[in-house]
Amino acid sequence: MISAGTTLAAIRERKPLVHNITNYVVMNETANATLALGALPVMAHAAEEVEEMAGIASALVLNIGTLSAPWIESMLLAGGAATARGIPIVLDPVGAGATEYRTVTAHRILDSVGVTVVRGNPGEVATLVGAHAEVRGVESIVAGLDPAELARTAARRLGAIASVTGPVDHVSDGTRVLAIANGHALLATVTGTGCMSSALTGCFLAAKPAEPLEAAAEALAAFGVAAEDAAEAAGGPGSFHARLYDGLYTLDPATLDERTNIEEL
Amino acid sequence: MISAGTTLAAIRERKPLVHNITNYVVMNETANATLALGALPVMAHAAEEVEEMAGIASALVLNIGTLSAPWIESMLLAGGAATARGIPIVLDPVGAGATEYRTVTAHRILDSVGVTVVRGNPGEVATLVGAHAEVRGVESIVAGLDPAELARTAARRLGAIASVTGPVDHVSDGTRVLAIANGHALLATVTGTGCMSSALTGCFLAAKPAEPLEAAAEALAAFGVAAEDAAEAAGGPGSFHARLYDGLYTLDPATLDERTNIEEL
Amino acid sequence: MISAGTTLAAIRERKPLVHNITNYVVMNETANATLALGALPVMAHAAEEVEEMAGIASALVLNIGTLSAPWIESMLLAGGAATARGIPIVLDPVGAGATEYRTVTAHRILDSVGVTVVRGNPGEVATLVGAHAEVRGVESIVAGLDPAELARTAARRLGAIASVTGPVDHVSDGTRVLAIANGHALLATVTGTGCMSSALTGCFLAAKPAEPLEAAAEALAAFGVAAEDAAEAAGGPGSFHARLYDGLYTLDPATLDERTNIEEL
Repeated sequence: MISAGTTLAAIRERKPLVHNITNYVVMNETANATLALGALPVMAHAAEEVEEMAGIASALVLNIGTLSAPWIESMLLAGGAATARGIPIVLDPVGAGATEYRTVTAHRILDSVGVTVVRGNPGEVATLVGAHAEVRGVESIVAGLDPAELARTAARRLGAIASVTGPVDHVSDGTRVLAIANGHALLATVTGTGCMSSALTGCFLAAKPAEPLEAAAEALAAFGVAAEDAAEAAGGPGSFHARLYDGLYTLDPATLDERTNIEEL
Repeated sequence: MISAGTTLAAIRERKPLVHNITNYVVMNETANATLALGALPVMAHAAEEVEEMAGIASALVLNIGTLSAPWIESMLLAGGAATARGIPIVLDPVGAGATEYRTVTAHRILDSVGVTVVRGNPGEVATLVGAHAEVRGVESIVAGLDPAELARTAARRLGAIASVTGPVDHVSDGTRVLAIANGHALLATVTGTGCMSSALTGCFLAAKPAEPLEAAAEALAAFGVAAEDAAEAAGGPGSFHARLYDGLYTLDPATLDERTNIEEL
Repeated sequence: MISAGTTLAAIRERKPLVHNITNYVVMNETANATLALGALPVMAHAAEEVEEMAGIASALVLNIGTLSAPWIESMLLAGGAATARGIPIVLDPVGAGATEYRTVTAHRILDSVGVTVVRGNPGEVATLVGAHAEVRGVESIVAGLDPAELARTAARRLGAIASVTGPVDHVSDGTRVLAIANGHALLATVTGTGCMSSALTGCFLAAKPAEPLEAAAEALAAFGVAAEDAAEAAGGPGSFHARLYDGLYTLDPATLDERTNIEEL
């Protein structure tokens, strides 16, 4: 059953620990988004400790935004520990398609780790399923691909829930497709909002592991509602960014479901 | 003598350079807190330069929030240089107790470096003295420990000033205990505010190295007053976070002592 | 011809990809400044991918603010690829003069890479030309050096445009000197604003590669105007910092030239 409000209430009550191995650019921002929502973030990347940290977490988020060899090793170690424990794992394939290194690494993680949800932009997800896409750095320009079909195809090919974000987000398990029409254009003017949506997906999965399709859609809807609130009276990307955490913090479980716009296609 | 206002005035006049080897999550935030207060931050972590950098600094802050082997080596090198020069050293044992790697590293630094102040949350500090504590990632849940006694015990066992932060902070040199009742609940909703308090402790120690117990308490009190100002009219964690730097910047040395709430127990 | 408005319009139309290899402290902030201006930032530092990333970028920004050996290797690899392609390269020699490691690395990059613009504070730039300067961490105190002459001398000695920022900025190609009198005192209270000015210099160079002297001056003028707007109603460094991105985002190409204060000396 889809109810972002119910899952948010569970997050705030249980305060699940979400282990992030993420990029340098957004570490602070994803930790703050997680904390503002009501979960507990932890960032740890040393090979010496990632298995132990994943061992006490309720979800793991792997984000390849600023890669290097030791971090890949740690992602695989943490991913192995998380897979063994059966906790949900989110992969954010940042920049897949921009360089071979990122594309190969994303596939390597998908092949070795029990990824629950792949959360990316259309260009990144298209790259992973072998479709044509232009990825300029970490931004994607995809022409002629229907995002709902992209999500469905990606879920089938990658063996994971595909969460493809854009003006309207599409989440699919390969059969069902949920479209989420929350959010605001200012999200595209702040770096790391995609990464935040992956971190929040981890929080929702931690509280609702048995229904990952629903949890992934609820996470995007909740983030979108927070962005809608943040955009009111924002003077641009900087004040919007600060208010985005206020928006996550003040999300009201009792009224959230009325405000989310999730439709099954 | 305790006077946060006098020490703050000295910081703004002398602008001491504070060398931080800290975690990726809070580098920007701790640098900005230091700068807003009136000191000069520098972040440098390469083994090739940390001894030289510690050699021109007035205080060193070591924070183990995102560890790896090369960073530990650099912390020990910088710590050795700072110890040799006799400048104050702050250790923030982020996540000690959450993984063995962090606990062992914190002890290794305490054993090798002349740490002046250990600033941590109750769970981290309890871990270092062998008491039972639950540390979930970087948050601690400690039941049944009196924080004043914890600070006193930790100071004796660790051979350093213990600065244990919480709703009320407790700072002890093993004999005296100072309780600081400034601050605001929103501090717990922003990641890295504990790390900021460690960085600011470094600033106060740099300006008042001969009285580390008083300096450590003044730092927490000043940060708490800034948080009280920031919380006024804040709409949540994001706007509070932005205003926190405004609060540090606008602290008034002339009136600060009237606003700090430091009590000797 | 100098016209920050015209170049800004070109940036917003073409959205050039700017590849940054920069320090941990300011990664998020320089990415957000780039995005708020209207260009596309990408942060990538792995030796495995930096040549490929520089190969699709329109400008490269190298910033040595938190150095280590693998990052230097990657800067040289990316710099080589960028030099071969003839795209503009900005070097920000953060902390040159504070440690030997930084000074030597800045010279090594200048010797190996076709640097277009060196953007630094007076102490860093003076260090690179062998003049006496005190660099405390990443802040500089330079006495008795005329900044216009410093810029002219540095450009000649370093074989690149010298962009020396301060209360008034000076940019020189070794012959001509442009003085830019935009900006606000609050810029000095936020860490990484110098790094942001380097990143924005990369954006302007990407859109106007044939006139690097003019582009470098326009970048500083545009950033200064954004800071002037941000300072209005700011309550201190934190709210100013958030508004700085708003200021960049709301820069109006149609009126920008009336507001910039660029003078040829």
